[in-house]
Amino acid sequence: MQDLDVSTITDAVIEQMATTPDPRLKEIMEAAVRHLHAFAREVNLTPDEWLKGIAFLTAVGQACTPYRQEFILLSDVIGLSRLVNVMHDTKGREAAGTETSLLGPFFREGAPKIEPGESLARMAQGPEIVIFGRVTDAQGKGVPHAVMDVWQTDAEGLYDLQAHDPSEMDMRGQLRCDAEGRFHFRTVRPLGYSIPMDGPVGELVRRQNRHGYRPAHIHILVAAPGFRDLVTALYFADDEHVDSDTVFGVSKSLVISPRTDLPDAPVPGIPSIRYDFTLSRDTDGAGGRVGSDPSKLMPAG
Amino acid sequence: MQDLDVSTITDAVIEQMATTPDPRLKEIMEAAVRHLHAFAREVNLTPDEWLKGIAFLTAVGQACTPYRQEFILLSDVIGLSRLVNVMHDTKGREAAGTETSLLGPFFREGAPKIEPGESLARMAQGPEIVIFGRVTDAQGKGVPHAVMDVWQTDAEGLYDLQAHDPSEMDMRGQLRCDAEGRFHFRTVRPLGYSIPMDGPVGELVRRQNRHGYRPAHIHILVAAPGFRDLVTALYFADDEHVDSDTVFGVSKSLVISPRTDLPDAPVPGIPSIRYDFTLSRDTDGAGGRVGSDPSKLMPAG
Repeated sequence: MQDLDVSTITDAVIEQMATTPDPRLKEIMEAAVRHLHAFAREVNLTPDEWLKGIAFLTAVGQACTPYRQEFILLSDVIGLSRLVNVMHDTKGREAAGTETSLLGPFFREGAPKIEPGESLARMAQGPEIVIFGRVTDAQGKGVPHAVMDVWQTDAEGLYDLQAHDPSEMDMRGQLRCDAEGRFHFRTVRPLGYSIPMDGPVGELVRRQNRHGYRPAHIHILVAAPGFRDLVTALYFADDEHVDSDTVFGVSKSLVISPRTDLPDAPVPGIPSIRYDFTLSRDTDGAGGRVGSDPSKLMPAG
Repeated sequence: MQDLDVSTITDAVIEQMATTPDPRLKEIMEAAVRHLHAFAREVNLTPDEWLKGIAFLTAVGQACTPYRQEFILLSDVIGLSRLVNVMHDTKGREAAGTETSLLGPFFREGAPKIEPGESLARMAQGPEIVIFGRVTDAQGKGVPHAVMDVWQTDAEGLYDLQAHDPSEMDMRGQLRCDAEGRFHFRTVRPLGYSIPMDGPVGELVRRQNRHGYRPAHIHILVAAPGFRDLVTALYFADDEHVDSDTVFGVSKSLVISPRTDLPDAPVPGIPSIRYDFTLSRDTDGAGGRVGSDPSKLMPAG
């Protein structure tokens, strides 16, 4: 029997996990153990601090519901979601492809179908805007009938999932581009918002003296056969937090401003945003969206 | 605005957390982000794998109850608990001090008081043993009236917390040494056991082809004013898993065998274990137990 000390414990764990049949699970768990132990050694984690960490992670898990994903929120505020996103992007996005952004914890499957020109706002009120453009491949050719999921906060900065009755959907919809990849829809200008501050992740962000705000944005997921899912978002240039997003989602190429002088605007007079989305071919079959419907992430039973 | 890439995202997160007023929280979170990001980069974590990780951690958090601490179990099976334990030990244990072991997820506050010679077994049945010895300081001087918490599985390998009605305590007790630090109590010989395999951590251990067993042992926590809490356990030498503990808790000096030939055994004829516990002075005030009552780790409300 070997007495385990500060340095031998890590190898002992990796040795005991060496029987893992799935090579990828083995690789991931070995790396996780090495990095986690290195972290604990570097900060010389005390039993009290370890226990606070256990209580924090327990609270994060307990805060999850079919309508709320506190672990994705944690991953977002410590930049892990963005990192995974960027790595996925680096691996499979074509040079001309639209940059991606975070899917975040507010995506839902089964949003209502929206016809061309219809509005995402069912109950929500506020200043109206129009979004239009084309979905193309990297060569500029329209992608026929690409499907777009769009979701956003209302003009008060709340998602339907945060409403009194989260079972009713609002400010989200699924639309279908035409045969040339063209789309247009109406919506209400979203408001920037604080991430949910009433849970353990909000408490952490508060203890870090961070403002906790995301700049106003509209989430968009574009899917078409033969292309990788494009998970992205458009950010409003005039939002005061566009440079200090709490979840690190903004890229320069995704920052927009509604304008009233666009010659090809489908609804003249209403502030409009023209944005063309460029899909990348699905060459590596990596698939996978960075995020999912919170209800799908709850354990069964 | 800076476009964040695979390498700059980490610094951007650390910069946004730089406003943290508590220097220790700042240090810990910075190191956590650096090591977590390094892990994700090293294994090139995909969105699908990230999502599986989110679902796993959510399930671990949701499995926690006032009677079950699945995050401590996770920490145990990946050797983090042992590492924190060993670091705490290295920092504050006197050379002569008894080695520590894991407190684990089955400790409870408020165990029933046991008088000298009484048994821990209230309902549990099985082969009886006696444990006796002395609690001393590093110079061998008895520590008067040291308080010992003792807890263990029954002869079927189950803790009271795993019983049908976990509110009833059994196989645990709190005793008080005499003025010379002497103690003796009776109990039932514990059985080695599998960690709880019906939750997400059990599922992980199964997917790693690990046996999931802990060797038979008795947990002991000794406390006395002026000394650091001694959290330790005694392991039975003849258990088949004494060399391959799933939670890495065993040390050579903590391995014991009941004997019937001890001249000073307080109850002749019953297999007995003599073990003297040596406390270390509480010089650094680090205090802290590696573990706590599961009910204390649940979020309020």
